[in-house]
Amino acid sequence: MPMKVGFIGLGIMGSRMAANLLREGHDLTVYNRTRAKAEALLGSGAHWAGSPAAAARGVEVLITMLSEPTAVRAVAEGPQGFLDGLNAGALWVDCSTVNPSFSREMGGACDRLGLRFLDAPVSGSKGPAEKGELAFLVGGAEADVATARPLLDVMGSGVSHMGPVGAGSAMKMVTNLLLGMGAVAFAEALVLGESLGIARETLLDKLLGGRMTPGFLAGKKAKFANGTYEVEFPLQWLHKDLQLVSTTAYETGVVLPAAHATKEVFGLARRAGLGEQDYSAVVEVLARKGGA
Amino acid sequence: MPMKVGFIGLGIMGSRMAANLLREGHDLTVYNRTRAKAEALLGSGAHWAGSPAAAARGVEVLITMLSEPTAVRAVAEGPQGFLDGLNAGALWVDCSTVNPSFSREMGGACDRLGLRFLDAPVSGSKGPAEKGELAFLVGGAEADVATARPLLDVMGSGVSHMGPVGAGSAMKMVTNLLLGMGAVAFAEALVLGESLGIARETLLDKLLGGRMTPGFLAGKKAKFANGTYEVEFPLQWLHKDLQLVSTTAYETGVVLPAAHATKEVFGLARRAGLGEQDYSAVVEVLARKGGA
Amino acid sequence: MPMKVGFIGLGIMGSRMAANLLREGHDLTVYNRTRAKAEALLGSGAHWAGSPAAAARGVEVLITMLSEPTAVRAVAEGPQGFLDGLNAGALWVDCSTVNPSFSREMGGACDRLGLRFLDAPVSGSKGPAEKGELAFLVGGAEADVATARPLLDVMGSGVSHMGPVGAGSAMKMVTNLLLGMGAVAFAEALVLGESLGIARETLLDKLLGGRMTPGFLAGKKAKFANGTYEVEFPLQWLHKDLQLVSTTAYETGVVLPAAHATKEVFGLARRAGLGEQDYSAVVEVLARKGGA
Amino acid sequence: MPMKVGFIGLGIMGSRMAANLLREGHDLTVYNRTRAKAEALLGSGAHWAGSPAAAARGVEVLITMLSEPTAVRAVAEGPQGFLDGLNAGALWVDCSTVNPSFSREMGGACDRLGLRFLDAPVSGSKGPAEKGELAFLVGGAEADVATARPLLDVMGSGVSHMGPVGAGSAMKMVTNLLLGMGAVAFAEALVLGESLGIARETLLDKLLGGRMTPGFLAGKKAKFANGTYEVEFPLQWLHKDLQLVSTTAYETGVVLPAAHATKEVFGLARRAGLGEQDYSAVVEVLARKGGA
Repeated sequence: MPMKVGFIGLGIMGSRMAANLLREGHDLTVYNRTRAKAEALLGSGAHWAGSPAAAARGVEVLITMLSEPTAVRAVAEGPQGFLDGLNAGALWVDCSTVNPSFSREMGGACDRLGLRFLDAPVSGSKGPAEKGELAFLVGGAEADVATARPLLDVMGSGVSHMGPVGAGSAMKMVTNLLLGMGAVAFAEALVLGESLGIARETLLDKLLGGRMTPGFLAGKKAKFANGTYEVEFPLQWLHKDLQLVSTTAYETGVVLPAAHATKEVFGLARRAGLGEQDYSAVVEVLARKGGA
Repeated sequence: MPMKVGFIGLGIMGSRMAANLLREGHDLTVYNRTRAKAEALLGSGAHWAGSPAAAARGVEVLITMLSEPTAVRAVAEGPQGFLDGLNAGALWVDCSTVNPSFSREMGGACDRLGLRFLDAPVSGSKGPAEKGELAFLVGGAEADVATARPLLDVMGSGVSHMGPVGAGSAMKMVTNLLLGMGAVAFAEALVLGESLGIARETLLDKLLGGRMTPGFLAGKKAKFANGTYEVEFPLQWLHKDLQLVSTTAYETGVVLPAAHATKEVFGLARRAGLGEQDYSAVVEVLARKGGA
Repeated sequence: MPMKVGFIGLGIMGSRMAANLLREGHDLTVYNRTRAKAEALLGSGAHWAGSPAAAARGVEVLITMLSEPTAVRAVAEGPQGFLDGLNAGALWVDCSTVNPSFSREMGGACDRLGLRFLDAPVSGSKGPAEKGELAFLVGGAEADVATARPLLDVMGSGVSHMGPVGAGSAMKMVTNLLLGMGAVAFAEALVLGESLGIARETLLDKLLGGRMTPGFLAGKKAKFANGTYEVEFPLQWLHKDLQLVSTTAYETGVVLPAAHATKEVFGLARRAGLGEQDYSAVVEVLARKGGA
Repeated sequence: MPMKVGFIGLGIMGSRMAANLLREGHDLTVYNRTRAKAEALLGSGAHWAGSPAAAARGVEVLITMLSEPTAVRAVAEGPQGFLDGLNAGALWVDCSTVNPSFSREMGGACDRLGLRFLDAPVSGSKGPAEKGELAFLVGGAEADVATARPLLDVMGSGVSHMGPVGAGSAMKMVTNLLLGMGAVAFAEALVLGESLGIARETLLDKLLGGRMTPGFLAGKKAKFANGTYEVEFPLQWLHKDLQLVSTTAYETGVVLPAAHATKEVFGLARRAGLGEQDYSAVVEVLARKGGA
């Protein structure tokens, strides 16, 4: 059954997720900071909202897919924010990657306003977003997951309900920590091996797809081989996620020495101008010589 | 065809490797710092050598399987060292995990003495050693690999000839770096997830065996679940290998920030008394509270 | 000339700063989360305010001295927050140690409300607070510094006007980064030296007060010598400040590898139960054995 | 009373130390890998030795001032090494910065040969070497220190007898660890401050010479201000020393997380081409943008 849905955030991921909802017949109102990114969707029948609040008016479910907590806060609570536009009982599904305490803060704000809330960050990048094969890591009440499920099933192929509000973001922190640390571990192994005279091709052949490296790296083989890193998941976003991990670890009182060293390697890569390339480009900042 | 073989170093790994050679009919002379560890082999027909030099006398191939470069140097070049005992043209196969520059130094010493040398560290721990399923990473001349191959094939199920002397140790540094970094990455992800209220069981189920973690961790699931870490590969040896990686990276001029942070986490674990447990026990030093 | 002043936050530092203002004849209204800490001041003539807003009503200058940004935000913008209580044109002087972007955010909020704002974190701990010898690092408009100066001169003995709003907090980040890194550098040097057989007393004699270590450590000599760390500046606050440094460095795009490693050492110390001792106790977490 | 002295290693430091001995009237025989560096001394009356062994023949005291343990080992134990050239009872004073276990190994080798040994690394760089104002950190027997003292007093202005053989190198590790960590702490503070808009000049004025930074940095002010780092103590040597610290900490079983992060920052600086500049140039690798 078609639902009335608001969608805020039409970047690489959001635009593809929204297109899938539209294709499935949902009644979609969209908002984005720059309207240009909405044009294709508008041409396919989506409605334009002039503000976050306008995108929220009258919808059953509002979906946000933004880059970071500050951006989410701005459209939610800033001027013409959507928390003011939603009807009582409406459901906000935040698919952005944010820290768990931020999710809980937003959940609390919804509670006080008589709104419902799910944190539902996604696993998967551009390709899966396009094919509707994202995996959702969801935190919130069972009933709210049930409300959102028809939409999540259109945008993705798996929903893991991890627990109460914040649990989706919690699991997302864990997975992106593994993503970042796995990438840097492989990068350091690669530069060590190359420095010892082993050809990069040999290292890639021996190490990717085997039991020494995580599966998510196998798909990056051509990138490492060619030294060109067409973006799937931008390095600067993973750097941002590692900063959220740092904040989160401080809040929960755990110590993550290698995660912080990893974060700073991404920081170096970003300073070196690799922020908009795929995160696997992190290897280059350790591989290249000179240049400080 | 049976060969006359010397074998030095009868620890967890070496005793099992030697037993396989003996079973296959090779004429084995063994030496170990403490004779007690040799008794089972002696009962099966191995000869006892009273010194490293004695173990080397008259053999075609001498195999060493020791804990670290210093230990290898002691039996090779120390008092009654085997370099004095080997016949001209004999082949030394060093299966110990050492740094590549040490392998090259030993290769150079052999050269000057008219001896042949292979560095041939192994992948695989206690179980594969027992079953003769180790994988050898070998550096040296093709002809020397050919000489050693019948023995390597008895002790293992795969020989990767990586290049000239030092290349086997080089690849071993790379793989053990991935081992250590993968273990600590998973440890940090686990403690972060638990600190956020996700049950350890859920984290193990979601993360092990999937694309977010390397395959070598999947076999450790019961260890993580029970919090008991029966040793397969002792934590203190992996710590040692990471120190060799540090030395090697300094020598080749590469920078490995996360590897060094990882090394220090293993150092903390060792100070906390976990050195003789399996290396996967590293998670405990980050998971437990109190205790400094 | 006596001023009408509100004061929020009566911890170790704030209570002593407020007492000095009161002694100098200023008309002081105070608020603290727990009233008990205010009793001594109330006995000396301060007025009690039942809420942050009440502490702000009618004052010319409102001073806050709280533990962290979240705490400042709560009393400023939370329920009965003081931003609603201040008269137009009143000046808020935030002496808390917070990150610069937070100071700028608060400055912006004041701007929009017709209020004035200074960030004015302090250098110095319990002793200097008591004697009115704190050093203020101030960001804001010249005119606002002039308004605050009579009060700052009572509470401290030096005012460094660093630049516009946020510049005081910026300099405070820099100094506390040096504090944390200096303490851990000395801790690591100390445990290295002791592990090599040099007596702690010898190390303290040779290294403190000389050119190898910063001056702020010389005053900690008795603490290191006795292994007891009576609190001047609690370890957990410095840990918090290093987390703010991490956030700030991410925001400005700089990479601080050693600062992050330092932060995690403080995190270990806190997990080990040292959070409420003096920050110099960080040495103990590296010095002690066992205990994970 | 003039002594018969051999001197090996005529770099920045060694050439100045030897010149002072010569000026004081000692009978000096010198050896250096490249003879060119010896010419000035030969012109002033020093004798040339064609090999390390030749430099040792007939001397009462042999002094070495070399860049690292490997270089020391080469001239001591390599072909035509000086351990073969020294008369029984002669004293070897090693002024090189090496790790304590290496000093103890050399001490042990001397013992077995009936030679005497002191480890006597120096504090101070080019200037103090020239003026004979070095500070010696000495490990060894009291009687051997007494023998060496007339020479040490010519080359330096202070002798700290730290304990038995190895104790001088131990204290040197401690001080150079503080040197490296202090420099990187200041570098990180500087780039953080600059990223927040505080002028470098302001930061230098506020921070150098005060209680927040160690005294050894105050003399580097002009370097930081100009961004040119005329060498006093080359960055690559301090990097080497931090690697020796890493080896040492592994050997003694202590954990130094921030020291290792610091070491890797120096590694980055070296890769960026700053190795031959003064170690204070480390700030540049964190300050500059781009360039990976």
